[in-house]
Amino acid sequence: MSRCIGYLGPQGTFSEEAALLYDSQAELVPFPTISQVANAVAIRQVEEGVVPIENSIGGSVPETLDLLIQQPRLFICREVLLPIRLYLLVRPGTEEENIHTIFSHPQPLAQSQRFLSRYFPDARLMAAPSTAAAVEQMMGDTHGVAAIGTRRAARMLHAKVLAHRIQDYPVNVTRFVVLDKADHAATGDDRTSLCFSFAEDKPGQLAAVLQELASQEINMIKIESRPLKKTPGRYYFLVDLEGHRQDAHIVQSLTYIKSITILFRIFGSYPRHRSPAPATRIARRRRCP
Amino acid sequence: MSRCIGYLGPQGTFSEEAALLYDSQAELVPFPTISQVANAVAIRQVEEGVVPIENSIGGSVPETLDLLIQQPRLFICREVLLPIRLYLLVRPGTEEENIHTIFSHPQPLAQSQRFLSRYFPDARLMAAPSTAAAVEQMMGDTHGVAAIGTRRAARMLHAKVLAHRIQDYPVNVTRFVVLDKADHAATGDDRTSLCFSFAEDKPGQLAAVLQELASQEINMIKIESRPLKKTPGRYYFLVDLEGHRQDAHIVQSLTYIKSITILFRIFGSYPRHRSPAPATRIARRRRCP
Repeated sequence: MSRCIGYLGPQGTFSEEAALLYDSQAELVPFPTISQVANAVAIRQVEEGVVPIENSIGGSVPETLDLLIQQPRLFICREVLLPIRLYLLVRPGTEEENIHTIFSHPQPLAQSQRFLSRYFPDARLMAAPSTAAAVEQMMGDTHGVAAIGTRRAARMLHAKVLAHRIQDYPVNVTRFVVLDKADHAATGDDRTSLCFSFAEDKPGQLAAVLQELASQEINMIKIESRPLKKTPGRYYFLVDLEGHRQDAHIVQSLTYIKSITILFRIFGSYPRHRSPAPATRIARRRRCP
Repeated sequence: MSRCIGYLGPQGTFSEEAALLYDSQAELVPFPTISQVANAVAIRQVEEGVVPIENSIGGSVPETLDLLIQQPRLFICREVLLPIRLYLLVRPGTEEENIHTIFSHPQPLAQSQRFLSRYFPDARLMAAPSTAAAVEQMMGDTHGVAAIGTRRAARMLHAKVLAHRIQDYPVNVTRFVVLDKADHAATGDDRTSLCFSFAEDKPGQLAAVLQELASQEINMIKIESRPLKKTPGRYYFLVDLEGHRQDAHIVQSLTYIKSITILFRIFGSYPRHRSPAPATRIARRRRCP
């Protein structure tokens, strides 16, 4: 029996592509927001949920970080890296010179600024809740309207590709995480995500953490300080490490870090994603129980 | 004679508010993009330029980081912290129940998601190049249209405030930086921003940097790893420190950091911004030479 996986919908979004890349046999269930995906996992409406966590250009996705911090029973069990490629799509028959309005999600609009200001400086840019919704809206509209979306949405909705790979930066990758009620067993090639904050703001605390990691030869893949929403001027730290939280040397370091921090939360350990490949299959749409 | 300051325009944006908060006597010149502001400073079309660098919710502004890395002759000479408060604005006479379309910049649309999905779940969300442009567009449109914008834009364009402080998070601050051809002299309460990357990816390098800072009792205010756009899988680090790059203990640490990194760039030292206050004055609009 195939698994039932929630994702940030609707159909045709990058989250759906990431979910297919993760498990092409799964039954996929779209949800309108990231927190609804998380909630569906928490109440076991779906077995797992796929949500974006960071983009190589735009940075972290605050909603996903928030819910990982707030929902202590949700864990990251996998990561999926998806190269982001944006396409300018139109209804068949629409000519470039007649385009006066362009729909997309705010993020792709921001990531195609150079293309848009060069070729469509006068077009009205309209925000849609997702790239897929933008393409759908465009297909139901009059000629003269375009959408920035995915090749997959173009295929699904019979849109015509007017321009290929219009994103400002050719290397543009979004990292998605798969949420579950437990993380993944050690595989020998793992990544561990955690967050912590200190009781006071003084020099050397973060250095002590990194020194501990270095003394155990633990490689750090990511570090980011972010303001605590409820305490302006104070920060928490997001850190990703190479290795699994149950590897002996990491257990020791995490125990130490926990002892010198107040907030301390391991988001999970999971296999590192290697070699992304495009997803093509159309998922089955049966509703999960 | 007053100074001539460029900002991310048009009039009525948060960047204009930040520029006024920085210098209420300046002549302000709007530019359509962050890189055009930077360029105007570089060619001395304006004396200084005000651009956003990070938001407490949304994170770093990639365009500003990019140009600081790419333009080695531009420096941060000041910082300005602006509390972000969003308002739902309409043409006088428009009733809440008739609103079918809402304009704003993609960022405020994203930061008012809870409000929008609660009160206007069916409204069309339209992306404008700035909050000010959104309000202007709304005022020129038919009734039934609203915009998310600033109180200042409401006053300037005679819009009516339909809802106050609609942002999802009450504590929402954007940090702006003032760009100049040199940074600021030491004041005794300064902040220094820098970026660096390592030749190889191995454990302990960043720990060595932080250990050096800690040994000099230098407090770190921010740290963030970001992917190098041209080398996937490799990172650079953005770090903000308390103190001035010419303070003796900081000179020593920066010399050490430079010696163990490949990319190394000090964005500047500048006085720390304390106690933000709302800007109210309308700036003079004379064109700078």
